[in-house]
Amino acid sequence: MIKVLRLGHRAGRDDRISTHVGLTARQWGASEIVYSGQKDSNMIESLRDTSERWGGEFKISYTKDWKDIIRDFDGLAVQLTMYGEKIGEKDEEIKQRFEEQDLLIVVGAEKVPRWVYENVDYNISVGNQPHSEIAALAVFLDRVQENGIKEEFEGSDIQVVPSEKDKLTK
Amino acid sequence: MIKVLRLGHRAGRDDRISTHVGLTARQWGASEIVYSGQKDSNMIESLRDTSERWGGEFKISYTKDWKDIIRDFDGLAVQLTMYGEKIGEKDEEIKQRFEEQDLLIVVGAEKVPRWVYENVDYNISVGNQPHSEIAALAVFLDRVQENGIKEEFEGSDIQVVPSEKDKLTK
Repeated sequence: MIKVLRLGHRAGRDDRISTHVGLTARQWGASEIVYSGQKDSNMIESLRDTSERWGGEFKISYTKDWKDIIRDFDGLAVQLTMYGEKIGEKDEEIKQRFEEQDLLIVVGAEKVPRWVYENVDYNISVGNQPHSEIAALAVFLDRVQENGIKEEFEGSDIQVVPSEKDKLTK
Repeated sequence: MIKVLRLGHRAGRDDRISTHVGLTARQWGASEIVYSGQKDSNMIESLRDTSERWGGEFKISYTKDWKDIIRDFDGLAVQLTMYGEKIGEKDEEIKQRFEEQDLLIVVGAEKVPRWVYENVDYNISVGNQPHSEIAALAVFLDRVQENGIKEEFEGSDIQVVPSEKDKLTK
C-alpha cells in the first residue's frame, strides 16, 4: 500500500501543482493522498471528481495534523527532498523493503519543517537540483515498483485506448 | 542531445506548471526548452535566473512558430500524451534509437492540435490516466536514459550536499 502526504499546500498558489501531485500518486498506484497546509475544499473536490470519473479507489482527504500521519504510519516513511540521499543509491533497498512494508511518501510545497527530516525513515533526493515535487514523486514511484504505472481502474466512466496517432476513448 | 518543446503555455494559469516542466527537463539532462503558446517573459526570466544560479548550460527560449520546431528537428520527435502508445512497450526501442539520434520531446498544456499527433515519430503515453505532463516528462526521461538524473552543473553559485537528515549546501 502506498500513501502520499502533501505538506504545506497554499490555496490559490499551489492548486494545480497539488492536483498534479494527487493525480500522479493515483497513476502510479497509490491508494491514498492526504493534503495538509491550507484547507482547499475546491481543489480536493475537483480532484475527487476526476478520480471518480476515471475509476478505481483513491482516497483523498485533508488534515491539519500532519505530524500524526507520519507518527502513526505503520510502515516506511520517505520524504522526497532535493537535500536527501541520492535515489540511485537507495532505490533498490527501498524497493526491497517495500515488498514487506507499506510506504508513506511525504512531499512538501515550499519550506518543510526540520521535524520531517528527523522523523522519516529516509530523506531521498530525486536529483539535487531544484525541479518539481511532481517529477520527484513520479520517478520515485516508477523506480521502487516493478510495473509502477497502474493500468486497471474499476468502474470508470471513461477509458483511453492507446493509439499510435489518434485520441481514442471508450 | 535532448530538446523539449512546451506547447500552449497560458500566462498566469500555467506559470508554475511550465516552470516545473523546464526545471524537470534540465534535471534530466535536456540542453534546451522552447516555450510556445502565450509569450510569458516573466516566467522565462525567472526560470533563467534559477538555471544560471544552479549552473550548467540550459537554453530557454520562446517561439510562436512551434510547427517549425517539430518540422525542422533533425532527430526523433516524441509527443507525450495520455492517448499514445504505452511507454512500457516503446521505451527500449526509443532508448536504442536515442543512442544514435537527438530527441525532441513535445509536451502540451491543454488541447494539443491534431497536427502534432500526425507529425511526430511517436505518441507515447506514460500512463493512460489524467495526471501531469511534468510526471510524464520526468519518467520518460528517466526511462530512456541509463543515468538520467544529471549530476554536474558547471559554474553554479550553489550546490546541494546530499544528506541523510540535513539540508546542506556549499
